Amino acid sequence: MTLGFGVVGTGAIGREHINRITNKLAGGKIVAVTDVNQESAKQTVDQFGLDAVIYPNDKVLIADENVDVVLVTSWGPAHEATVVAAVEAGKYVFCEKPLATTAEGCMRIVEAEMKHGKKLVQVGFMRRYDSGYVQLKQAIEEGFIGEPLIIHAAHRNPTVDPRYTTDMAVVDTLIHEIDVLHWLVNDDYKTVQVVFPKKTKNALEHLRDPQLFIIETKGGIVINVEVFVNCKYGYDIQCEVVGEEGIVKLPEPASISFRKEATLGTKILTDWKYRFMDAYDVEIQDFMDAIVKKGEPQGPDSWDGYIAAVTADACVKAQQTGEKEAITLQERPAFYRETTVCETV
Amino acid sequence: MTLGFGVVGTGAIGREHINRITNKLAGGKIVAVTDVNQESAKQTVDQFGLDAVIYPNDKVLIADENVDVVLVTSWGPAHEATVVAAVEAGKYVFCEKPLATTAEGCMRIVEAEMKHGKKLVQVGFMRRYDSGYVQLKQAIEEGFIGEPLIIHAAHRNPTVDPRYTTDMAVVDTLIHEIDVLHWLVNDDYKTVQVVFPKKTKNALEHLRDPQLFIIETKGGIVINVEVFVNCKYGYDIQCEVVGEEGIVKLPEPASISFRKEATLGTKILTDWKYRFMDAYDVEIQDFMDAIVKKGEPQGPDSWDGYIAAVTADACVKAQQTGEKEAITLQERPAFYRETTVCETV
Amino acid sequence: MTLGFGVVGTGAIGREHINRITNKLAGGKIVAVTDVNQESAKQTVDQFGLDAVIYPNDKVLIADENVDVVLVTSWGPAHEATVVAAVEAGKYVFCEKPLATTAEGCMRIVEAEMKHGKKLVQVGFMRRYDSGYVQLKQAIEEGFIGEPLIIHAAHRNPTVDPRYTTDMAVVDTLIHEIDVLHWLVNDDYKTVQVVFPKKTKNALEHLRDPQLFIIETKGGIVINVEVFVNCKYGYDIQCEVVGEEGIVKLPEPASISFRKEATLGTKILTDWKYRFMDAYDVEIQDFMDAIVKKGEPQGPDSWDGYIAAVTADACVKAQQTGEKEAITLQERPAFYRETTVCETV
Amino acid sequence: MTLGFGVVGTGAIGREHINRITNKLAGGKIVAVTDVNQESAKQTVDQFGLDAVIYPNDKVLIADENVDVVLVTSWGPAHEATVVAAVEAGKYVFCEKPLATTAEGCMRIVEAEMKHGKKLVQVGFMRRYDSGYVQLKQAIEEGFIGEPLIIHAAHRNPTVDPRYTTDMAVVDTLIHEIDVLHWLVNDDYKTVQVVFPKKTKNALEHLRDPQLFIIETKGGIVINVEVFVNCKYGYDIQCEVVGEEGIVKLPEPASISFRKEATLGTKILTDWKYRFMDAYDVEIQDFMDAIVKKGEPQGPDSWDGYIAAVTADACVKAQQTGEKEAITLQERPAFYRETTVCETV
Repeated sequence: MTLGFGVVGTGAIGREHINRITNKLAGGKIVAVTDVNQESAKQTVDQFGLDAVIYPNDKVLIADENVDVVLVTSWGPAHEATVVAAVEAGKYVFCEKPLATTAEGCMRIVEAEMKHGKKLVQVGFMRRYDSGYVQLKQAIEEGFIGEPLIIHAAHRNPTVDPRYTTDMAVVDTLIHEIDVLHWLVNDDYKTVQVVFPKKTKNALEHLRDPQLFIIETKGGIVINVEVFVNCKYGYDIQCEVVGEEGIVKLPEPASISFRKEATLGTKILTDWKYRFMDAYDVEIQDFMDAIVKKGEPQGPDSWDGYIAAVTADACVKAQQTGEKEAITLQERPAFYRETTVCETV
Repeated sequence: MTLGFGVVGTGAIGREHINRITNKLAGGKIVAVTDVNQESAKQTVDQFGLDAVIYPNDKVLIADENVDVVLVTSWGPAHEATVVAAVEAGKYVFCEKPLATTAEGCMRIVEAEMKHGKKLVQVGFMRRYDSGYVQLKQAIEEGFIGEPLIIHAAHRNPTVDPRYTTDMAVVDTLIHEIDVLHWLVNDDYKTVQVVFPKKTKNALEHLRDPQLFIIETKGGIVINVEVFVNCKYGYDIQCEVVGEEGIVKLPEPASISFRKEATLGTKILTDWKYRFMDAYDVEIQDFMDAIVKKGEPQGPDSWDGYIAAVTADACVKAQQTGEKEAITLQERPAFYRETTVCETV
Repeated sequence: MTLGFGVVGTGAIGREHINRITNKLAGGKIVAVTDVNQESAKQTVDQFGLDAVIYPNDKVLIADENVDVVLVTSWGPAHEATVVAAVEAGKYVFCEKPLATTAEGCMRIVEAEMKHGKKLVQVGFMRRYDSGYVQLKQAIEEGFIGEPLIIHAAHRNPTVDPRYTTDMAVVDTLIHEIDVLHWLVNDDYKTVQVVFPKKTKNALEHLRDPQLFIIETKGGIVINVEVFVNCKYGYDIQCEVVGEEGIVKLPEPASISFRKEATLGTKILTDWKYRFMDAYDVEIQDFMDAIVKKGEPQGPDSWDGYIAAVTADACVKAQQTGEKEAITLQERPAFYRETTVCETV
Repeated sequence: MTLGFGVVGTGAIGREHINRITNKLAGGKIVAVTDVNQESAKQTVDQFGLDAVIYPNDKVLIADENVDVVLVTSWGPAHEATVVAAVEAGKYVFCEKPLATTAEGCMRIVEAEMKHGKKLVQVGFMRRYDSGYVQLKQAIEEGFIGEPLIIHAAHRNPTVDPRYTTDMAVVDTLIHEIDVLHWLVNDDYKTVQVVFPKKTKNALEHLRDPQLFIIETKGGIVINVEVFVNCKYGYDIQCEVVGEEGIVKLPEPASISFRKEATLGTKILTDWKYRFMDAYDVEIQDFMDAIVKKGEPQGPDSWDGYIAAVTADACVKAQQTGEKEAITLQERPAFYRETTVCETV
């Protein structure tokens, strides 16, 4: 069985997924595309030599019976409407982050999906498919370190676009830790506090950088995340989980070591695109396999999208108030069972 | 364009490639299978739900016009005949090692291929597609360490089958270093000498283990390879290249680190299957992509298969004589240009 | 010139320093000892075969003209009186931590020393003599990482005595980070906040463990210190300084690596005594050399002892209140110039 | 008890030991010095403010009854005569390498010492006191890796003096591995073979560099040592022991790690003097302690000096012949028991 994908949004990330599905993975085919910029949609079809219908908008694309899956890679504010429409039409959805730009929007998707009665939606949080995080989660679930007590994490970029603002440290950067860390320890967030260290001279005037987020979970785990988006030296993702019986830590990306000019070293990536490249492939392949074999996606779901939205709101508020802010989630419906480690990795 | 694969040999490695092409990679389809054990062929078709013709032998399979590529995963001694027949029929070939069991057999394939006039054959030396080796080769080709002078390598297995004999350390184990190391430094082998250290008590009576191979290239590089197939602690592949300006070394496979019970450590693999799992995927995808985009495979070719056969013969002889033995290759035909680093990785 | 040491307190740490001065280092000699337990003093003289007078109390010991240096290794509450008396007598003092049990006590020593007119006192904060911390400080002072912005530190013990209480995490454990970190970045502390993660099951009922201290300096550096005294896996000191241009991190203690039983690892120390063993030697040798060559000790001084006392008080208060507490230091007198990296290491 | 040292030879290494004994270690005192250059002797006394007699030659220095130990740091060819004279006078000797420039010379010292009836001589092979090698030896002796089978070692210098010749790779460089490796595995050498890889362009015309030494022991261990004295990148000592049950490896010198400019690294030493600085201190302190507590030195003895001389001769011969050369040692006298791991480290 080959899944027919209808793509809504043919920008950079959309084209990457189209390339992946067309040229690298098994089981999917792009059968339809649309974009608010119809020229972009046309160029994309040409670029990849797709045998795909170009639709004027998401509504008609969703209605195409050859479309089994709607791939939502449009502008963030447009996500919610497309996802809700697709869910109501009973189509599977793979939606890049954010699921919706507000917690309320996410909740409307949750409700549409529950009304439909089966999970259809996966959100594009690819870190859960990174081999390192998967190993961390397996170790924790096997009890290798006992109960997790503390997480030390860091998310560092060498530099950012001049338009990057202080709150984007949450919604564009920390958002990945927000998703992956509650999944990692299978717990819910309770509070968040932000501490601003001395600002680096390498950040523009309007940007607070670095920032430290101190998040506590309902279970009492304390999570420290350093977000530093002008660290200069490279793109660097760190995650260490301290448990009652030991510690586990994310590996550095595998890279040849060298001895040269009085240094024993390895290269650090500078471009984020290479850090989770394999994870993107595994993510989409798993999404397709889960649909075919299990009838529904197994990855981050609408509820995870809702958690991300609520938590991000609290983090931005904490940036502004300097106080410890509550992260107030509605009760998780039975429909959204707890996620477990990806079986296919 | 989807490449039609005809599989000759449905044992373990054959089925792994069938699974890979069917369920993990883009651009290929199994259209035909055969096996000397027809029941195995039938089971394989059922197991993977293939839409494939089951043929009584390789001859008729090769003749099927839907077969673009012959995937040779039969018993080693059968390889040569199948490959020659496929080449004569103008079909592409992916042949698991060995290309042929003798240097003469490899040369017959070389001649058939040159007669055909285009490269059709790729040999299943997957290490060239391993990210670590690719990084090593890129570093060397960029002049990062200057001219390579010495290679220190090790190939260690935790244990081996009781039927594993001393010469299998060459033809089953060292064979991978034989292929990848001349590619790595773009040089030809000249001599080989074998030194036998004290034997481990963990090897059976009939097996010399460990063994040290000292190989010199025409360019003067000295390559030390330790082969130790009862090392007990894990499956471990080491490769360090010492150059005039510095050293580069293969990374350990990426694995979470831990602090537990007074040890700071990472796990070492014990099963070889996991070490190059990604490399197998990249290898087959690259093979398909190269055929579609460049009209011929870009990986290890028939001449590489011939080099492996001649070198392995000299290594086995050196095991027996204890002397430095010549590795005497015929002159490389212009048809088989020097290989370069895999572009797609 | 050989410095005559008079030792006040012949318990474990006193005997270690006596052994060090007598059998491992150059330039010092134990000429007098005293202890509230005179029998202990006598045993110590016998144990090390010392040619030393046994005095009934610190007063008469200080008065001995052969005593150039008073080594204070008595019970903490007794330190202040001995140090003040020694300073008033113009004797050099090496005092194990704490300099005094209260900030006021430290201030009285500071005043006595300033009145004397020359620095005489060194406090036993040995980490400043650890090769790793010295390298960190040199790197920072050379501008290798630009301005320091954040410090991530951890102080972990495998287990503690049942009598260890929550505040001892400050006065016995964190106290070392308190001293070494302000020296490292040459800054003063401003506030401290304590966060208690979920408690490990391996801690006794009365003990909060682990604890996280978030300390801000006047210069805006944010320091995270995890104190975890029942971490089980080993004695582990971590310190990473994040700067504007890069990061530097304390090395693991040098230890052979091994490959065994599917693990690539190194041993972690379990006994704190071995972690800074070299630092103790360097500390005492530097103390003696500085007196002989420069006329006054160059290590942590009375003002550092005062800083430690004030900071520890604030940390204990922060444990109790859960609020951000101010660390209010008096202005540093010119007499106590800023410390610099140890020149002799 | 303070040991009186008479120093024969006040060049660079002589002065370093004088400084060490005078200013860093406990239990020794320089009481006499001599040098063929009397001016050098005088300058040395002044430089360190020694209370020492300056003698015109080694004979009268040895005769001084205040001289307990003769420290031989003169020109290599002069060692033998001084050592023999000191031994005949019943004085302890610490002799820098070589013990004598020929195997016959070493044997004459051995005979003098056996005639005297007690071990008096220690040779300055300091690596046995390096913490890393001590850990390796302890691991091996505890059976941690089972029987040793193979050693992979490397001795790399960034560059060498223009006068450095091919045979100096043995007598100045490999000589340290020659001493430490037989001690490490408690075995005797049997044969040696030399392989010359392609020469680095960074070596002068007259020098073969790098070189590979393949040494086999009587017990069957195979030792590979790469000597590369123009490796450019740093001073680097590697040693890995492959055993039946696992592998142990020398640590890198402890150094802070950094993340900067897209590199995760540590610094490599470039000056050999810093690599074994601690080992020199431990070596001399242990030598003094052993004399005082056990009545004779416990470090590398005259027989080890003899082994080094015989082995070096065979290695130089192997450089010239290209053949496997025998390393023919006389039978070890019972007087020279097997050495064991240094207890004091």
